[in-house]
Parts: sequence; C-alpha cells; structure tokens
Amino acid sequence: MAKQKKAPRPKAVTPKGFRDYFGTEVTERSEMLQKIAGVYHHYGFDALESAAVETVEALGKFLPDVDRPNEGVFAWQEADENDKGDWMALRYDLTAPLARVYAQHRNDLPNPYRRYAMGPVWRNEKPGPGRYRQFYQCDADTVGTNSMAADAEICMMLADTLEAVGIPRGDYLVRVNNRKVLNGVLEAMGLAEADPKRDDVLRTIDKFDKVGADGVRQLLGKGRLDASGAYIDGVGLAEEQADPVIAFLTSKADDVAGTMENLRAAVGDSKVGQDGIAELEQMGALFAAAGYGDDRILIDPSIVRGLGYYTGPVFEAELTFEIFDEKGRKRQFGSVAGGGRYDGLVKRFTGQEVPAVGLSIGVDRLLAALREKGRMGGTPTGPVVVTVMDKARMADYQAMVAELRQAGIRAEVYLGNPKNFGNQLKYADKRNSPIAIIEGGDEKEKGVVQIKDLILGAKIAESATLEEWKERPSQFEVARTELVSKVREILASQQDDSDA
Amino acid sequence: MAKQKKAPRPKAVTPKGFRDYFGTEVTERSEMLQKIAGVYHHYGFDALESAAVETVEALGKFLPDVDRPNEGVFAWQEADENDKGDWMALRYDLTAPLARVYAQHRNDLPNPYRRYAMGPVWRNEKPGPGRYRQFYQCDADTVGTNSMAADAEICMMLADTLEAVGIPRGDYLVRVNNRKVLNGVLEAMGLAEADPKRDDVLRTIDKFDKVGADGVRQLLGKGRLDASGAYIDGVGLAEEQADPVIAFLTSKADDVAGTMENLRAAVGDSKVGQDGIAELEQMGALFAAAGYGDDRILIDPSIVRGLGYYTGPVFEAELTFEIFDEKGRKRQFGSVAGGGRYDGLVKRFTGQEVPAVGLSIGVDRLLAALREKGRMGGTPTGPVVVTVMDKARMADYQAMVAELRQAGIRAEVYLGNPKNFGNQLKYADKRNSPIAIIEGGDEKEKGVVQIKDLILGAKIAESATLEEWKERPSQFEVARTELVSKVREILASQQDDSDA
Repeated sequence: MAKQKKAPRPKAVTPKGFRDYFGTEVTERSEMLQKIAGVYHHYGFDALESAAVETVEALGKFLPDVDRPNEGVFAWQEADENDKGDWMALRYDLTAPLARVYAQHRNDLPNPYRRYAMGPVWRNEKPGPGRYRQFYQCDADTVGTNSMAADAEICMMLADTLEAVGIPRGDYLVRVNNRKVLNGVLEAMGLAEADPKRDDVLRTIDKFDKVGADGVRQLLGKGRLDASGAYIDGVGLAEEQADPVIAFLTSKADDVAGTMENLRAAVGDSKVGQDGIAELEQMGALFAAAGYGDDRILIDPSIVRGLGYYTGPVFEAELTFEIFDEKGRKRQFGSVAGGGRYDGLVKRFTGQEVPAVGLSIGVDRLLAALREKGRMGGTPTGPVVVTVMDKARMADYQAMVAELRQAGIRAEVYLGNPKNFGNQLKYADKRNSPIAIIEGGDEKEKGVVQIKDLILGAKIAESATLEEWKERPSQFEVARTELVSKVREILASQQDDSDA
Repeated sequence: MAKQKKAPRPKAVTPKGFRDYFGTEVTERSEMLQKIAGVYHHYGFDALESAAVETVEALGKFLPDVDRPNEGVFAWQEADENDKGDWMALRYDLTAPLARVYAQHRNDLPNPYRRYAMGPVWRNEKPGPGRYRQFYQCDADTVGTNSMAADAEICMMLADTLEAVGIPRGDYLVRVNNRKVLNGVLEAMGLAEADPKRDDVLRTIDKFDKVGADGVRQLLGKGRLDASGAYIDGVGLAEEQADPVIAFLTSKADDVAGTMENLRAAVGDSKVGQDGIAELEQMGALFAAAGYGDDRILIDPSIVRGLGYYTGPVFEAELTFEIFDEKGRKRQFGSVAGGGRYDGLVKRFTGQEVPAVGLSIGVDRLLAALREKGRMGGTPTGPVVVTVMDKARMADYQAMVAELRQAGIRAEVYLGNPKNFGNQLKYADKRNSPIAIIEGGDEKEKGVVQIKDLILGAKIAESATLEEWKERPSQFEVARTELVSKVREILASQQDDSDA
C-alpha cells in the first residue's frame, strides 16, 4: 500500500472577525439579557426565538440577483440534485425574522403583537478593531398598531431598561425624533420624494453636531473648508433652500411646545411634516403624563438614524457620561440602543401594510459601558480549591468538595497531576481561588485540615511591611468537622475587606 | 421609462427543518439553561462562548475534500478576489469548538480546564418529525487530566443537574461503561484494531436490548430470522468468537465487584480490557464514597454510545419513567444526555495528546420530558390588560399600567383600535390575561374602575350550573385608588383556585 500523505494540522484560530468569550464575559452578558428580558416581559412583551437561519428570499434586501448573494450576509445554497436549492443565510438582525414570523403566524398571534427577542446576529462585513461579525441584539417590537402610545411605551420601556441594568438616571438620554418631520423639511426645501439629493441632505444633517449651523449651510450650498484645510464639496443647493434645514436643526426650545412651534415653521405647508409634528406632540404628552421628564426622554430634532425603513418616530438612547478613548481623549460614550416605526416590513410578504414599531439594544456596547463605569468586570472570585496530597485518597477530597457545595460554596478538587504541590497553588492562583484546602497524611491522622486564605496571602506578599496584614494569619488549622464553617467565615471576611 | 417587472412576494415560511419558538417555549428553556449553568458553575466549571461559525478546517471530520464540504454541516466559502476564501461552517456541536479554543488558548487557561458552554448547534441533515436542523446543547468538559476523578465528577454532576431541573431521583439513571472494556472484548474475540468487523460487532451489541443474548449470538454468527419473518444476515464470526461478547453483555451482577469479576472473564488477557476495568473500578469507588448509589449511577456494560472519538469511559443519562408515544404505546423516555472521554480531539491541532472528558445534555429532549411529566408547559398567565374606552385618555390608561407594573404586576394597555370593545376582550382572551381593567367616562367621573376576573369569568361561562361559581361575582367596581390592591387580591385568589 502506498504511504498516504499526512494531512497538515489544522490551525487553531478563531475565524476572522469572530471571537471567543470566557467566564464573566459570558455570565455578565447572560445576566444582563435576563434583566432586559425581565423588563420587556413585565411590559407585556412575549418571547420569540426564531432560528439563526432564514431563506435569503425572506430576509430581503439581499436578494440573490447576483451569482452569490453574499453582500452583507453569510449565505449558502442548499444542496439539491439540480443545484437549484434555496439560498439560505444567517439573520443579520432580529427585525427581518420578526416580519417573516408575523406574516406567517399572524392569524394565531394576538393583535397587536408585542414580542421580544434576543440573540446573536451575523454581518458579513470587513471586521475591524472592536467590530465583530457576530454580536448580540436584544429587541422589542409592537406589530399591528399605529397608535403613538406604542411608540411612547417603547421609549419609556427603554429608559426603564437602562436603569434596570445599572445605568442611573442622568447617565442616559432617550432622544426622539420623527422621520415625517424630516420629510416635511425636505418637502419644504422643494426636494421631491425621489430626489437623490435627499440622501445628501440627510448626511449633512448628521454632521450638525460637528460643524454647527453655519457649517451645515455651507455644506448644503457650495461647500466648506475643513479644519484640516481640505475643501469639502457641497450639495449644491440654492441659498434659501438651506433655510428650512437650519430652522429644523435649531428648533430645540426650552420646552416641547416651543420646539413644536419652531418645527412648524420649518416644515411650512408640508402635510407629512405636520403629521410628524402631531405625532411628536402625542408622544410628548404621554411622556409628560407618565412623568418621564426631559432628563430621561427628550424630543430632539437632530436625531436621524441610518436605516432607510423607518417611516415615523425614531429614537436613540445615548449614554451621556464621558469616558476616555484609546488615545486618552475625553469623549461621550454614545448610542447603545435605537429604533423607530417601520410600517413597510410585513407588507413585503402579505401585500398589506402592517404598522410596527421596535427597539434594538446593542448588548455588547451596553456591557462595555458598564465595564467602563466600573459596574461590571471586576476580577471574579474563583472556586475554593481542594488540593490533593495523596492521589489514593481522592474520595476524601471529593467528599470535602461535596460538603462545601452542599453549603452553597462553589468548590472543586484539583484534577491535574498532584505530584508537584506548587503547581496546585499556581492553579488555584490562575483560578482566582479565594481559599485552598490542604489535607496531607499528618492532617488526616490528626483529624484536621489546613485552610489557606489566598486573597489575604496575596495581600501580605504584596505589602509585607503593612503591620495590619502581618498580624493576621493567612493559614488556619481547623478540625475536619469545622471545614465548612471556617471556609464560610474566611469568605465573609474577604467580602468585608473588598467592600471596605 | 419602461415599467419595471414587479418581483413576486417572498414566501413567509420557516426554512425547512427549522422552527420558531414562542413565549414559554423560549422562557422555559432559558430558565432550564440557567439552572444547568448554575450547577456547572457551582462545580467549578467556567463559561465559554465561542461563535456559531468555525472554519471547516478547524471543525474537522468534514474536510473540504469535495467541491462543497456540506456533508452534515452548513458551509460556505468566504468571498475573496481569487475565489480562494476559507470554507466556513456553522458548528455541529460544542466539543469541536472547545478543542479549537483549548489548542489556541491553552497557555492562558488553567490546567486542567473545566468549562461549560450552552447554545444552538446546526446539522445539515434531512429534517424529520421532531428532528430539527438547529437545536440546543449544554456541555461541560474537563480538559487536561487523565484522572478518573474527572470522569466520576462529571457523572455525579450530571445526576445533580437532572435533579436540579426537576427530574426526581428514581426517574433517571446515569449508566457508565468504558470503551477500553469493549476494545478488550474485541481483542479477546481475536479482532485486530483495524478489523472492519469491529463496527459490525458494536452495532450488534447495540441490539442486545431488543434481541437478547441468543439473538446477539445468532447475529454475530450466520444470522437470524427476524420477528417480521425477514432473515438478517450475521457478521459471520465463528461460534466461539461470540463467547466474550455474550460474557460481556451478561456481566451485570448484583454489585459492582461482581460485575467487574464477570468483565474480567470477558476480556481475558487483553491489556486494554483490563485497563478499562480498572478505570471502571476507580469510578465505582468514587461514586460509592460520595454516596451516589446505583439508583443514580450504574456501571452498565451495555452502553456503547455512537461517537467514534470516545477512548475511555462513556456514559448516558436515561429517563426511566414511561410515557405514551404518538401511537399510544407505552415506552421509556430514553436518553437525554451523554458523554465520555475523548483523548484525541486537541491532538489534531497541537500534535500532543490532551486528555479530556465531557458531557452534553440535550436540552430540548429534557424539556420535552418535563412537559411530558406535566412539570412544565401549563398555560402561562398573560399580563393584566387595561382596556381603552376613550382613545383621548390614553395617558390615564398608561398611568394605570405604570402603577400595576410598579407593584410588580405584569400589565399592558390595549394598543389596537379601541372602537370595538369586544375585540379588546378577545385580545385579552388570546393573551391569557387574568384580569381586564375598564374605565369609561362614567367610571372616570365617579372615580372608580371596573375590574373583570377573566379566569373566573371563563369558569362561570364553562360551568354555568355550578352554584359555587355563580355566587362569586367576576366583575368588581372599586375606587380608582384601590386598583392595585384589588388586582393583587384577585390574582391571589386565582392562584389559590389553581393550587386547589
């Protein structure tokens, strides 16, 4: 037999743009998802979990008009004798699957249908630093009602959710706008619905924060000299066409009524613009009645939001505290959630317009924010480690572990080669163990165990001159029968130290 | 402009072999996963979450030796200018990603490394009734130790986990075997390691439950006349070659020592067989010392387990209670979890053998079992529904909802078109609402609200003759200020009725 060529070893690498999450990275996210789900559920939203996979046809936006419909999604063709299998893809958000589910099951679902969904979504994009091709979303949507009470409810629920996960009032702001108002401004500018310049105007509006009113006016006109000295070409509109935009961008007044007055001036005769203002007024009234002041939810005409499918109210939750970026510069943390009304998504399937409004929380960004604020991500405490002095007495060590666990204490026995005791303590260190238990032959005979306070031990090692630590022993010999109570006592004292 | 051809509407269908999960189907699974994670964590296992996507190369077993490596997995080729992008695939289990993660991060991980993982996995298989192409697994593995204490720990943890999720002792059994014992039996039969008849023998052993010792003897030899009258060809072994198999299959004695004695006879001089028996003995001793009797964990030589990669102990958790299948026949519920030792998986990447042992729980089957036993899946109670009598007073209704929620009561306002009040009650019915709140203009003026006990109402409607129900009113008028306390009282009385 000819000698077979040996296949090269596979590379052990995370696929490009994906990552692995370890320990508390997983559990903290899972706890946050539970808290969010708790608020959503309390508001009457029901859970929905669809599969990660949808047909490309149902996902839409990425129809297989090319040989391989992989623009933005991970897609493949189902195997089939004639190579005519369906194209399938990983979902890129949780809204497209909701539209499919609602269209499919609408006769069995309550109407209106409030649902929440959480889970990973996938984007086939070029990965960058901090940008992954799989990430979590956490959505709530109300399908089947055009009542602004639905939109207002979701904004208030968003504020409640942020507080529930640990962002205090004052550290976040939900900003609300309405696409119809924007469309009204575009109408007042004389730009028809299909005018390609509409997108240029929207992009320019998005720069208001950076360049101010005068900058926007220049960019809508001939152009503008950048701070870097580069000349940015303008949209090329006439001077007076910029007026409604500027009126719109500077419409924020001290109260909602004042802002509405200014917006009315900006949209002029536009019917759609007036509708949008009326919707904002309805939402504003509901916020006020429910006691959500503008320290929590603010009508703010400067919010645009990228997605083309929004048709009415849009909103965004921003964290307002400052952080330091990788270059040490102060900046605001920015957006962690957003959403809006999208009345067209279900229609793709059924032909009938179904009004809907939804919210999506970027869970990974929210987690990053809480870690930034020091509210999460401290070094987690590992399990108590029972060391092994005599391999033949493994049953004794497992009995200790079982006793500790039954007392509610996370514990494990060392399972590596016990020959080198130093390795066992190194292991306990790597596990962030608070305590190690030692029972050698002598101890066994005397009916005692040694209990090492590893956290105190580390502190003494770090600051050997501190009298405070020196006076406290970090290893205790106690009767075997006292194992659980002594461990409990040490854990409590460690807790006190770390709280102090 | 030429009229564009309108694209046909996409079909709103769940892709073949996938499904959608609604409401309690989602929350019950999520609660079960949390409980399982709790036990795993308590045992010292750390969470790991890798992405759904791996390179086909890293996944192994499904190498791209054909044009399209889609045997069993969902795979696609990364876009790349030269069409030479990597092949990527959805993970088909949680063990292959663990092997990759361990090989990649082994210098940073504690050694031994105990980790748990939970999440969906995907199989590109022909879907069948109850067989889906995406399902949940919930794994725990210990990598980097060949101590039988690791294997024993995982078996005991499996027993604890089943009890933690609600399977009482007596309703499950963890059966343990060892592949080396099986290999010893095959050696004692004179079948070399590469002998293709080994697989035939293993398949025949798996039929022992159905055909008994005589049947196995026939199937190992010339063959056997089936109950249906069909003749099943045998493996074609000599008469005496069947002896070790029969000795092995009938080795279970009243106690572990007796079983071991019988197994020793079955494997004869085989070194590997004797090693396997020694391993089983070590595990048996640890189970006994920890008080896990054979009502929970049983050394049982009849367990084989399909996966080729197991190299030592194998185990399986079976639910022992009887259920009725779709044809009304009594049958045992069967296996819900399994695992074993696999010492070769990491070696694919590193060249070095890394011992490992793991456990996988089939969460969906376990959920099905609990529903079967009536421990889950009852009709969930929906939210309290505040109806809308006057659209203009939405703020009043939202205030009620907010009060109820603040009191910890799940509540929502009706968001559909309020014109038809009957539709609002139909909606509350579809939501399984326990209570509906009504406040029309008259009530508003009098400062009262109407509270409808919908569960009592439904009972009265169902059994109008029952005096018991008739005497109890199902609608109450209370002062607006009494809203929360009355709702609380009714919810408590409903709870009492359903407990009774």
